[in-house]
Amino acid sequence: MFKRLRKRGSKKIGLSPGTLVHVGEKKTDEVKLSVIDYNLNNAKFEELESVGELTHYIEKDTVSWLNVSGLHKPDIIDKIGDEYDIHSLTLEDILHTEQRPKVEIYDDYVFIVLKMLQYNDQKKELDAEQVSLILGQNYLITFQEKEGDVFDRVRSWIEKGQGRIRKKGADYLAYALIDAVVDHYFLVLERFGDHIENLEEKVFSAPDSAMVSEIQKMKGDLIYIRKSVWPLRESVNILLRDELNFINSENMVFLRDLYDHIIQVIDTVETFREMSSGLLDVYLSSISNRMNEVMKVLTIIATIFIPLTFIAGIYGMNFQYMPELEVPWAYPVVWAVFVMVAIVMVLYFRRKKWL
Amino acid sequence: MFKRLRKRGSKKIGLSPGTLVHVGEKKTDEVKLSVIDYNLNNAKFEELESVGELTHYIEKDTVSWLNVSGLHKPDIIDKIGDEYDIHSLTLEDILHTEQRPKVEIYDDYVFIVLKMLQYNDQKKELDAEQVSLILGQNYLITFQEKEGDVFDRVRSWIEKGQGRIRKKGADYLAYALIDAVVDHYFLVLERFGDHIENLEEKVFSAPDSAMVSEIQKMKGDLIYIRKSVWPLRESVNILLRDELNFINSENMVFLRDLYDHIIQVIDTVETFREMSSGLLDVYLSSISNRMNEVMKVLTIIATIFIPLTFIAGIYGMNFQYMPELEVPWAYPVVWAVFVMVAIVMVLYFRRKKWL
Amino acid sequence: MFKRLRKRGSKKIGLSPGTLVHVGEKKTDEVKLSVIDYNLNNAKFEELESVGELTHYIEKDTVSWLNVSGLHKPDIIDKIGDEYDIHSLTLEDILHTEQRPKVEIYDDYVFIVLKMLQYNDQKKELDAEQVSLILGQNYLITFQEKEGDVFDRVRSWIEKGQGRIRKKGADYLAYALIDAVVDHYFLVLERFGDHIENLEEKVFSAPDSAMVSEIQKMKGDLIYIRKSVWPLRESVNILLRDELNFINSENMVFLRDLYDHIIQVIDTVETFREMSSGLLDVYLSSISNRMNEVMKVLTIIATIFIPLTFIAGIYGMNFQYMPELEVPWAYPVVWAVFVMVAIVMVLYFRRKKWL
Amino acid sequence: MFKRLRKRGSKKIGLSPGTLVHVGEKKTDEVKLSVIDYNLNNAKFEELESVGELTHYIEKDTVSWLNVSGLHKPDIIDKIGDEYDIHSLTLEDILHTEQRPKVEIYDDYVFIVLKMLQYNDQKKELDAEQVSLILGQNYLITFQEKEGDVFDRVRSWIEKGQGRIRKKGADYLAYALIDAVVDHYFLVLERFGDHIENLEEKVFSAPDSAMVSEIQKMKGDLIYIRKSVWPLRESVNILLRDELNFINSENMVFLRDLYDHIIQVIDTVETFREMSSGLLDVYLSSISNRMNEVMKVLTIIATIFIPLTFIAGIYGMNFQYMPELEVPWAYPVVWAVFVMVAIVMVLYFRRKKWL
Amino acid sequence: MFKRLRKRGSKKIGLSPGTLVHVGEKKTDEVKLSVIDYNLNNAKFEELESVGELTHYIEKDTVSWLNVSGLHKPDIIDKIGDEYDIHSLTLEDILHTEQRPKVEIYDDYVFIVLKMLQYNDQKKELDAEQVSLILGQNYLITFQEKEGDVFDRVRSWIEKGQGRIRKKGADYLAYALIDAVVDHYFLVLERFGDHIENLEEKVFSAPDSAMVSEIQKMKGDLIYIRKSVWPLRESVNILLRDELNFINSENMVFLRDLYDHIIQVIDTVETFREMSSGLLDVYLSSISNRMNEVMKVLTIIATIFIPLTFIAGIYGMNFQYMPELEVPWAYPVVWAVFVMVAIVMVLYFRRKKWL
Repeated sequence: MFKRLRKRGSKKIGLSPGTLVHVGEKKTDEVKLSVIDYNLNNAKFEELESVGELTHYIEKDTVSWLNVSGLHKPDIIDKIGDEYDIHSLTLEDILHTEQRPKVEIYDDYVFIVLKMLQYNDQKKELDAEQVSLILGQNYLITFQEKEGDVFDRVRSWIEKGQGRIRKKGADYLAYALIDAVVDHYFLVLERFGDHIENLEEKVFSAPDSAMVSEIQKMKGDLIYIRKSVWPLRESVNILLRDELNFINSENMVFLRDLYDHIIQVIDTVETFREMSSGLLDVYLSSISNRMNEVMKVLTIIATIFIPLTFIAGIYGMNFQYMPELEVPWAYPVVWAVFVMVAIVMVLYFRRKKWL
Repeated sequence: MFKRLRKRGSKKIGLSPGTLVHVGEKKTDEVKLSVIDYNLNNAKFEELESVGELTHYIEKDTVSWLNVSGLHKPDIIDKIGDEYDIHSLTLEDILHTEQRPKVEIYDDYVFIVLKMLQYNDQKKELDAEQVSLILGQNYLITFQEKEGDVFDRVRSWIEKGQGRIRKKGADYLAYALIDAVVDHYFLVLERFGDHIENLEEKVFSAPDSAMVSEIQKMKGDLIYIRKSVWPLRESVNILLRDELNFINSENMVFLRDLYDHIIQVIDTVETFREMSSGLLDVYLSSISNRMNEVMKVLTIIATIFIPLTFIAGIYGMNFQYMPELEVPWAYPVVWAVFVMVAIVMVLYFRRKKWL
Repeated sequence: MFKRLRKRGSKKIGLSPGTLVHVGEKKTDEVKLSVIDYNLNNAKFEELESVGELTHYIEKDTVSWLNVSGLHKPDIIDKIGDEYDIHSLTLEDILHTEQRPKVEIYDDYVFIVLKMLQYNDQKKELDAEQVSLILGQNYLITFQEKEGDVFDRVRSWIEKGQGRIRKKGADYLAYALIDAVVDHYFLVLERFGDHIENLEEKVFSAPDSAMVSEIQKMKGDLIYIRKSVWPLRESVNILLRDELNFINSENMVFLRDLYDHIIQVIDTVETFREMSSGLLDVYLSSISNRMNEVMKVLTIIATIFIPLTFIAGIYGMNFQYMPELEVPWAYPVVWAVFVMVAIVMVLYFRRKKWL
Repeated sequence: MFKRLRKRGSKKIGLSPGTLVHVGEKKTDEVKLSVIDYNLNNAKFEELESVGELTHYIEKDTVSWLNVSGLHKPDIIDKIGDEYDIHSLTLEDILHTEQRPKVEIYDDYVFIVLKMLQYNDQKKELDAEQVSLILGQNYLITFQEKEGDVFDRVRSWIEKGQGRIRKKGADYLAYALIDAVVDHYFLVLERFGDHIENLEEKVFSAPDSAMVSEIQKMKGDLIYIRKSVWPLRESVNILLRDELNFINSENMVFLRDLYDHIIQVIDTVETFREMSSGLLDVYLSSISNRMNEVMKVLTIIATIFIPLTFIAGIYGMNFQYMPELEVPWAYPVVWAVFVMVAIVMVLYFRRKKWL
Repeated sequence: MFKRLRKRGSKKIGLSPGTLVHVGEKKTDEVKLSVIDYNLNNAKFEELESVGELTHYIEKDTVSWLNVSGLHKPDIIDKIGDEYDIHSLTLEDILHTEQRPKVEIYDDYVFIVLKMLQYNDQKKELDAEQVSLILGQNYLITFQEKEGDVFDRVRSWIEKGQGRIRKKGADYLAYALIDAVVDHYFLVLERFGDHIENLEEKVFSAPDSAMVSEIQKMKGDLIYIRKSVWPLRESVNILLRDELNFINSENMVFLRDLYDHIIQVIDTVETFREMSSGLLDVYLSSISNRMNEVMKVLTIIATIFIPLTFIAGIYGMNFQYMPELEVPWAYPVVWAVFVMVAIVMVLYFRRKKWL
């Protein structure tokens, strides 16, 4: 968890700005470049061997979407930057996978950074990947740390010509991809919802100390999600507010819809955070309750038997002159006293509602 | 509780945008279309068999209110959308019953989403239903997940020509319906108020561990209400701020009144939230107090009898040379010691205010 | 406490808007109308028998103050509304005694709702009453739920011609009355201050579980005061910001002064709220401390005597071959052991600072 | 502490506004009027006998600073007000020593209220005094509740002609005096810093229940300081924002510097507040730790000796047929059992890390 | 920790403003002046003996960077101020090393104060040093409390002509230096991240009371970092917002990048603060858990053996008529009872899940 929070550039520090270095984990072996080029009538899918092949697509009227997965070869990124005339700071940010989500508006393009989240079931961990988008006049470039399947649904819409996507430009494509990422947040949050529900049931029935660590971990994850989504909200807001010429004004309604979804993610995250804090309270009160119960058992047993033991102790003394010892009915009387003391105690505890 | 918080679209994900799908629980079997068409002099109530019959009402000068209950047949919604020229995103939002309350202003209409809340006495649960309103020039379309009785009071006013409603346009009708929903929030909150009061009495007299879960549940419900009402406040504010041509400026005063009511709901919810947090504190201090009391009883009993038992133990030893054992008045003296030790202890506890 | 928070209109719900109904407790038997009509030179005090007599005052140049105490006869309010041309929503709000404090600006008048607070010594409860003011060109109408004495100081100023009041218009009168209400808040807060001080002394010297409920009640009351004063601040701010023609610009300085007082009330309420939260913390730590002390006593006694009892137990065994038993100095040696063990233990506890 | 928070005007209530009354503690016996009149070349110091002597200074070009210490003679204040043409509300505010810090801008002067704080070492209390400033074209009037030494450093600068003060106007003088007050806040805060440091050391080494009350008192004091400084920040901000003709624009840079100092005071107060909350947490965890330790000692002793005592008890029974009793090596064997049980227990506690 | 928070000027108080005094710790023995003068083609490094030598650099077209390390000789600062025409308040602020980070814009230069943070491994302490920058038309002056190595990377870029630095002006140099400082924050935060991780592991496995103090110290350090970075964010924002003629508009993109980095530092600090609060909660729940466990062991042992001891006590009584004592099979029966009681108890604890 923390690793994600800290790592910014020990690798980078000392290098002169402008040097492209990949900062982050290497998550894939190969860098893959794939282009989808489409308009209303046609859609062409191609895997590129080298950056050079890009030139085919640049000057065309069609919408071209270049997807780069794998960021560990700075020179490839550099060449793409040259091809599309991208500012060097943008390229640095793409390679630097510990960015906060943000939008930056340049003269020729909009640069959008966001976080793709996925719940890794094997490791029981939240998996974050940085996705960068460069939206230009009729092109979109996306950078992923590794190949993923979140964008597949958009690819399939383009392929089959479903929905509005083929009728719209690169701006709608960008919207569709961001929306796909945001929809994935809901899937991740569903997991957390289930998890909270499970914990909630367990905290009442069988609280154990491992739960605190689980709750703590979940809170950390939720903080991370919040940190990923809050700036995204601001980013989309910037796109909505500034009238950019890359974004068709009639597509604004989709951005607004996207904005609503992001707000909903934030709402849910906040609710989950409150819920997990609540869980901790419940856990602590559960522990208190159990301690109380333990104490009651101890007190009841001790309070009944300690006085009895004392009485037995008295008649275990070896004084020569203890008249009671010789009385024949003394022993049954002592038994009666034992029973009476016990009954009185039990009644006392009943009245106190300890039994 | 959580179900309401998470569910957004696992069903939806993967579908191309623009495809109308009902997301949410199916709460009724039948889709019912009913139209109320009125002006100052007449009011006509009709149940429609098909969307086609709508055409009678569209071009008329009278105010027509179309109420749709049941959202599981997307094609009906789709046809209505065609009839009234509604944007496809609006239709998607109507079918998507996990929306946040919002207002969206289109050229021809205002789209309002809100949450109807009801307290289900059988299930002891908060019941939420999404209500969508489309307010156009002289029509209002409302979408409910199931038939309800909250709107009945407005229907009866129209029928009997009570109040101002027949003198006013579709905008006042929308206000009256939203106000009816908001009034229902007060009823729901009254329940919570009673519940808090009960819990408060119980937490002092007989705190038990089930209360924590009850308080926790109530806090969750209050969070949900807050999430339903906060955006509504913002929505009404938008209507107040933007001067829309669907809304007669002399009806603004009613919107302002509505706004006041919403603020009051929010205030009450916040107060209840503080109160329930307070309850948890009280509960924990109650538990601490009880533990303290348990400990005191144990300590008093143990502290009195353990030393006495020790003394008895001494004279239970079998040493051959224990001069005390032969002294005739030793036994009474030991008894006197017993009594004295006990008295000293009791006085000590008195001074400490444990008794 | 809660009653005040919830009650909005179960009585009202279902009635068509525009119907005047009194919502709230009936706090007086009679509705009393009294008029004070004054200018710099004269002041006339009159009790009215019927609303009809108002006509004398309406068209005059003098300042006329109509005070209505008792709200349970809607028809009287209705007639006054007709006489002064008051909007029906304003009349509804006057009768609805669970309003939030607010200011509403109409063309002909300003409508101000505020809460009069008094501490009821018999019931040990905070008493809230709604006061509504309608400030017109040269008249002021005030509505109280019952006759009170808070306005008496203003009446006496008018009667005796003290201060600036007779030189100023209805706007200054309104200011003077609101100021009187706000001054009463300080008196109420003084009570709470004393109460907190008492509790603070008690929480250190003799914390008992009833305190939690007292603190909780006080927190509830403070929340209520805050809810009464916060919106009032906003209201006065509106009056300050909007330049209304009912309010003489040279009287703005008094409104600003009033604003300062309200801020001071809010500050004090917030401080008291922090203080009462602090009290709860102190209470809990007090309880913990006492538990700790109880535990120490138990531990000291048990730890000293349990080993001693064991030793005594050893020599209470009936083995035939226990050489120690026959040694003449064994018994004194055991006693020495007893004393030594006890001393060692006491020293140990001393070092641990438990004694 | 609380006294400062509540007292506003029980004395005042009922009096007609415009009547000058001193509200607050009388802190000095005599009212002292002293004038310092200076320009770049000369500085004249004079104690006035009566307000009448002021006329000498009013129409002059030099900067005149009138300092009034002691507020219990309203007529003196009244006369000064006449002389300088001060609004009656300003005079009321000067006499009313429970004001919030504020700035009020009149046509002819600026009225500034602030709080002078000093730590009273004898009473171990925070001492607050209200200081009011009236800054006019070339005069400054200051009102103090009692004679103090905070302004002495400024007096000495004027006397000796040090720094910029003699080159500047009344506005710089006002700045210098407010800065002197703010610098005193730092001295007060240094005390609190030391106090927190002491408490922090003590809370780890020797937490005792008196600390809670100390922390609580300190929190109250810090709330009071915050209440004194927050509005001052806003006040200086108003002076910075509004371009007043009493304030030379080239002196703005000093006001900005003052503003920075105030922000620093606020920062420090907030940090101290967080620190004292932290202290309470540490205290509570300290108490928990100690309780834990107490419990461990009890548990170890009890758990070792209770079973041993039981074994001893067995062989203290008087059954006629207990074969073990006659076995010669039984007694040593029992001892061996005792030792073994004790060792096992000790090892068990070792493993649990209780020893 | 606290020392840093409080110390502002006891040394300073009483001095007339305008007097230059160094407030703060003296961290170096010598004051060192070094100049780096460069343009695209050349870079000259020189150590100055006296301030007089500065005149060479002032009127030149090249970018000159004067670095002053050591602030304890006010006269040197004073002379530099004369040379570059710096406002006296700026000079005071440079010498006053307890400033809040800030930006102040003068006609001829921008004055920037920031905090350099370093983690001192020997003392295990956060080390803060004030760095002031004066950015003029083609010069930059930096003031450090002691010589450091944070700026070395920038020096080396200039020397080797790496990156963009030699192509840009003094504004880019200022950016590069601030960026170096901000990058150091990340290194410091990495330390805290590691520390939190260690504590988190330990708090579950082996919570000890020293941790509270460690967590508390870390929270204090994080508050300090936040206090250093928050105003820096505001400062950079001011530079971004106000279009200054010292800052080339095409370098704005770097400032924006810097801004992003600062936001990321703030985010991380906030996350760490939440994490450390979480740690304290976990610690407290850990302690509660352990207490619970201790109590369980005590209760189990006591509850099993106290009744058994009582039974043994009964047959240790010396009554003459105790028929059981003579029965030959009584002793085995008692043993059976012992075993049975123990088994019942163990089963009871099993059911309660204490074993």
